[in-house]
Amino acid sequence: MVWKPEHKTGIPIYRQIMNWMVKQIEHGHWPAEMKLPTQRKLAEQLQVNRSTVIQALEELKADGLLTGKAGSGIYVSQPGWHELIHGAIPRWKERINQSLCQANSQTIQLINDFEKRTDILRLGTGELGPELIPSGALQGTMRQVAITERDFGYSEPKGHIQLRNALTDYLKTRGIQANAEQIVIVSGGIQALQLLSIGLNSGQLNMFHNSPSYLHSIPSITSTSITSLDKMKLKSNQSFYYVIPTLNNPTGISLSAVERQELIKACAAVNLPIIEDDVYRDLAFEKPPLPLKSLDHNGQVIYIGSLSKTVSPGLRIGWMVGPESVMDHLADLKMQLDYGSSAIPQLVAAEWFRSGLYEQHVSALKKQLKQRADFTEALLNTYFSDFAEWQSPQGGFYIWLRIKQPIVTKALFQLLLKQNILINPGYLYAPNDYEHIRISYSYCSREELARGLKKLAQELKARLGGINNEH
Amino acid sequence: MVWKPEHKTGIPIYRQIMNWMVKQIEHGHWPAEMKLPTQRKLAEQLQVNRSTVIQALEELKADGLLTGKAGSGIYVSQPGWHELIHGAIPRWKERINQSLCQANSQTIQLINDFEKRTDILRLGTGELGPELIPSGALQGTMRQVAITERDFGYSEPKGHIQLRNALTDYLKTRGIQANAEQIVIVSGGIQALQLLSIGLNSGQLNMFHNSPSYLHSIPSITSTSITSLDKMKLKSNQSFYYVIPTLNNPTGISLSAVERQELIKACAAVNLPIIEDDVYRDLAFEKPPLPLKSLDHNGQVIYIGSLSKTVSPGLRIGWMVGPESVMDHLADLKMQLDYGSSAIPQLVAAEWFRSGLYEQHVSALKKQLKQRADFTEALLNTYFSDFAEWQSPQGGFYIWLRIKQPIVTKALFQLLLKQNILINPGYLYAPNDYEHIRISYSYCSREELARGLKKLAQELKARLGGINNEH
Repeated sequence: MVWKPEHKTGIPIYRQIMNWMVKQIEHGHWPAEMKLPTQRKLAEQLQVNRSTVIQALEELKADGLLTGKAGSGIYVSQPGWHELIHGAIPRWKERINQSLCQANSQTIQLINDFEKRTDILRLGTGELGPELIPSGALQGTMRQVAITERDFGYSEPKGHIQLRNALTDYLKTRGIQANAEQIVIVSGGIQALQLLSIGLNSGQLNMFHNSPSYLHSIPSITSTSITSLDKMKLKSNQSFYYVIPTLNNPTGISLSAVERQELIKACAAVNLPIIEDDVYRDLAFEKPPLPLKSLDHNGQVIYIGSLSKTVSPGLRIGWMVGPESVMDHLADLKMQLDYGSSAIPQLVAAEWFRSGLYEQHVSALKKQLKQRADFTEALLNTYFSDFAEWQSPQGGFYIWLRIKQPIVTKALFQLLLKQNILINPGYLYAPNDYEHIRISYSYCSREELARGLKKLAQELKARLGGINNEH
Repeated sequence: MVWKPEHKTGIPIYRQIMNWMVKQIEHGHWPAEMKLPTQRKLAEQLQVNRSTVIQALEELKADGLLTGKAGSGIYVSQPGWHELIHGAIPRWKERINQSLCQANSQTIQLINDFEKRTDILRLGTGELGPELIPSGALQGTMRQVAITERDFGYSEPKGHIQLRNALTDYLKTRGIQANAEQIVIVSGGIQALQLLSIGLNSGQLNMFHNSPSYLHSIPSITSTSITSLDKMKLKSNQSFYYVIPTLNNPTGISLSAVERQELIKACAAVNLPIIEDDVYRDLAFEKPPLPLKSLDHNGQVIYIGSLSKTVSPGLRIGWMVGPESVMDHLADLKMQLDYGSSAIPQLVAAEWFRSGLYEQHVSALKKQLKQRADFTEALLNTYFSDFAEWQSPQGGFYIWLRIKQPIVTKALFQLLLKQNILINPGYLYAPNDYEHIRISYSYCSREELARGLKKLAQELKARLGGINNEH
């Protein structure tokens, strides 16, 4: 009866209170229809703020374990706990668990949650760090760009015409001929993938990809890794071949011009359309081979680009390019999902392309990324070279670090998290890959990289030692 | 051989060329493997720009009927037309047709397409017109609002904390207690509906609603209208009850305080959670009853709000409020769909709530809408009173006009479109409703309302006359 929540356990106080209350009900200490003490009394007894008590009570009411009666107080729900779990209003937990939509993996959820904290060293984060985001220039554009009353209305299905026209010119410089009707503006590359995966199949969709792949980390997209192009024959009418031909995430590898030709040919031979995710292209240190889309004579390739990696993920601006009939269909679908993207970031993006700010920015950014890549490789040479290997990055953000023993487990991920180090482990990108870590040199400052990588190396070494001792 | 595209048919020139080419192939005039004339020659022969020819050729290549061979020209595809339709690379049409995602109805597609034209009288458009959008004030906020480097990064799963905190205060003034963890920022109310419909069911979801309903116009959401609350017992574990209790779209009707209590009770009795779509609340001319959510003691109501109707749809800012566990799940799902909403409009919205600009704006807006409502009713009295009926609007945008004969057909919709008048016919909101038109007084200018409604009345009268003559 004198239970009290503990501070510093990492579990929020209201959650601890919830757990305690559930136990009281489960064990029969609190029978059905029992009236609970007042919020004030509970707060006194548990020595917490009243608002914390209210939060716990609200959650348990939402779960159906408690029932509020207006003006009278809060009661343990009528049908008893076990029945409730299987038949309560509104049975949210059941609905969530039965949901067709798979939740993100626990690791991804933790990454998404921890990334909002400022005291975390984000060694794997796939975005530009605060120092590299051109926020001053973006704010300048926001202050200048002309936004009409009409722009503040609903968007056209395919996105703002100014941005699509600007993209027509931009794509031309990358070897791709596309008119505005063949372009759909999306909220980043991930929305393009979702539209493609739900908009062009009858329920059995499968995306083929090389292993390891970013796609493996998105639970709502069913994907299969293949090692040889010959195996792509299967179920081609429900499938795509997904590829990041330039600076693959997470490996950083780019396909050669010949490999690109071969991939197009192999996919054509088995009637398999290609999704070309080209969001890292403009960050290649040396000019990369032309996109697959530029070699596409049969409308076989859907091309995806984005400003999330090159300028700012917070803009949520990406694009899809493909045959007009396909784009018509996917734009219609986007209207049903979110009624188009926000006009403001679309106009900011259009102005960046039109004015040349975009090209200036990426040109300077590439130099900074190259310096960071060199700096990071020097750190790896110092701390990791005796137990890990990697290839020198050709651009983008990532070094695909291979530890010589399979110790990059979920336990290690969580152990590092407790020390405020966030990594992107290999198992996010390929099943049962416990050897790799995706190191990103784009997010942390140099000081953070130095500190974080040193600590990471220590932890890894300790584990390697541990394993060696076991033998 | 001397066929040429016709101008002024309404069918784009490149589409006419496509149709002509398909016929040539279908009828065997152009056999498989035939090499087509050069683009230049075709352009000369058809007397069109070369870019128009290229567009037609690209589309037919995308459809698999033509094949481009690099450096050699364009050929009629190998396997012949009929085989191609059933087995071509990449068979986009087949994929689109088999897609699980239903396209918007033809009427909605036409509305979405025509709304981008400036010469159209939009008599049914459910948004603020250019005169009512506070674009000056919004631009002012854009110039002032502080956006940090961090804000230009990826968003938190539930949305920017500044906006969620501002909404906590805003919701309190509407009778709703919610902390920031119980709120998820979405790209408008429609995205909230999509997240709810895909995130909380195992595939058999059904939304119940009163008839007529806005929900009926969204093909990707399966919905059923019910006339009595008793019938809601069915399949409750896969269902929601969807309601716009204040200023329903399209009818403009609001539920009384007693009706709200009864609805909550009736839904609780059959274990049915409620989706309360409250996007019009702040546009009620007189203070409306409290939201259902404020009466919700059991976490039974998911509440939806938005700035699309009150400030600007181009911002794409809405919110969902519900039990934390449900919001956790839906925020995770949103990350998979679009990685969160753009930071810029979120910060603009937060500043509008914080500074009081929002309340000032809606207070002035309501007065303007009331004047427009009165002006529009006067027009209806002048032109429509002998063959139609309606109720005086209590707020929002709409008058649900009932014509005394079922003449509001797809044919009428298209006839009016040819005269540059865009209406929202009743059949969008209830099956086989050919009696109603949703008139909106929020979008057109007064001059346009006067001109458009007069013309609409003439057309309707002519049709009524026609029908009378037939008898």
